[in-house]
Amino acid sequence: MASHWESFYSTHLPPTDFEDNRKLLQEFCERHNRNNERIVLVTSGGTTVPLEHNTVRFVDNFSAGTRGAASAEYFLEHGYVTIFMHRLKSLEPFTRHFNGQKFMDMLDLHERGPNTSITVKPDSVDVLAPILASYKAAQDNGKILYVSFTTVSDYFWLLRAACECLAQFGPKALLYLAAAVSDFYVPANQMPMHKIQSGGAAPNIQLQLVPKLLAPLVSLWVPHAFVVSFKLETDENLLITKGRDALNKYKHKLVIGNILQTRRTRVVFVTPDNNYELVMGREQVLSGMEIEEIIVSNVVANHLDYIKIQKF
Amino acid sequence: MASHWESFYSTHLPPTDFEDNRKLLQEFCERHNRNNERIVLVTSGGTTVPLEHNTVRFVDNFSAGTRGAASAEYFLEHGYVTIFMHRLKSLEPFTRHFNGQKFMDMLDLHERGPNTSITVKPDSVDVLAPILASYKAAQDNGKILYVSFTTVSDYFWLLRAACECLAQFGPKALLYLAAAVSDFYVPANQMPMHKIQSGGAAPNIQLQLVPKLLAPLVSLWVPHAFVVSFKLETDENLLITKGRDALNKYKHKLVIGNILQTRRTRVVFVTPDNNYELVMGREQVLSGMEIEEIIVSNVVANHLDYIKIQKF
Repeated sequence: MASHWESFYSTHLPPTDFEDNRKLLQEFCERHNRNNERIVLVTSGGTTVPLEHNTVRFVDNFSAGTRGAASAEYFLEHGYVTIFMHRLKSLEPFTRHFNGQKFMDMLDLHERGPNTSITVKPDSVDVLAPILASYKAAQDNGKILYVSFTTVSDYFWLLRAACECLAQFGPKALLYLAAAVSDFYVPANQMPMHKIQSGGAAPNIQLQLVPKLLAPLVSLWVPHAFVVSFKLETDENLLITKGRDALNKYKHKLVIGNILQTRRTRVVFVTPDNNYELVMGREQVLSGMEIEEIIVSNVVANHLDYIKIQKF
Repeated sequence: MASHWESFYSTHLPPTDFEDNRKLLQEFCERHNRNNERIVLVTSGGTTVPLEHNTVRFVDNFSAGTRGAASAEYFLEHGYVTIFMHRLKSLEPFTRHFNGQKFMDMLDLHERGPNTSITVKPDSVDVLAPILASYKAAQDNGKILYVSFTTVSDYFWLLRAACECLAQFGPKALLYLAAAVSDFYVPANQMPMHKIQSGGAAPNIQLQLVPKLLAPLVSLWVPHAFVVSFKLETDENLLITKGRDALNKYKHKLVIGNILQTRRTRVVFVTPDNNYELVMGREQVLSGMEIEEIIVSNVVANHLDYIKIQKF
């Protein structure tokens, strides 16, 4: 059985940078709420489950953070201010397009002693310039806040703090919970202090179920927000059933379901009223279009409808 | 008990890109052996242990790959040709100094329609220019080969293939095994096909010990090479004892021991003859020096002595 969410908070300390992040979240939300803006919280990447207090080993979830990082860019394009709450070192909006070597290879070094300069190669400028312009616009106008987590416990603390700040936006807040949060953890009081030694018998790891935060999030923390959760499965047969079950249980607005192997080209939207697929056509794939552009357009349309209804 | 290394290979398939990487390794080694060069294999970063065939969850090791990535730069400075065998997306030599946002923030965009250009800000050129110059020198002269792994099984296949190519260098080959390889794994025939469901009871993961590759590596694959292994512990009391035990057991040349919390400023060298500490002074730390510079200098000195002795 899963432990209760309140007992999880009472047995796990907040991360060391928690107060700093809470202040950043508060300042960011208050500033933008004064301007009456729509805001999205995008969570992204996997969470770790430490197996030792002095953590050498941990259980992790498969997630590079592609969906969250790409979606954040499209939400910014749609005029949302964006909190990008991501796994440390997972992909981030804008920079995701260029890994380290790709960046280095784009550069020309002109060595002239004290007048040495470095320029981006002309044929790379075409690709980089629009991304750099969007990155700088989001940064310079304070439209995006980056906060990061590593463990599932960090994620719990950060998510609740974000919700406390998002509540003031009422229905104008959109929660896009794309992070791949671990379902299991090793309770702090059952963790060994030091690295598990490989000399003895092979260890047996007894995991416990993580409490589902969606329950207090929807009913208590941001009851007026538009909440979207994700389901990743590897078994097609379970996808819609499990999405519908989640919606019935937590009473939020939308579940986006996807299958590990086809997640870049197809998702299923499960809403309280119906379910429908979004599938990329062959030409869209070939043109380099990303499915996140389609997902975000559809989520935004649903969110705008929701805001309208709430006003009456 | 750990399974035998031969049975591990016979029950785990090679990774899909294995033949490509093997060809790259062969070509690289043959080219440089003709020039009578010294070569180092640097392994770096952690390995994953998948918990499901369609991998959503895995056990991972704490390791960003800092030690391996930094060391590779210093080995290149010392004139070694370098195989950098690293965990996919762990830190890499040269690019490790700049994460994505740091890179973006270094750039100035000059928007002039078709004549748009992008330059590195003058105050960033001082930092970037020497690193970019070293990166390009290594690339352009074919001095470095990057190959990557993710799972512990990928690592096994790649390491053996690298050794097969390194054997021809005799004592001129240095193996610097800094990767944090998992001690445990879930045997392929005990893994579930699909994602473990969170609806039922919390799962119990039964791990098995990974065979120690150092044994066949030292005695069979590269018997004349200078082999360096690493020990990471969180308990100071175990460090030297465990280093000495490993050396007695595998008969290689050097164990470098470090404690998780102090690994950036202190390591212990355990050799067949004695053991000694390398500790960074306060001024070295403040000057921004990296301990890998000191480690690599010492390893190289030991390796050169070894080559000399082998000639007589």
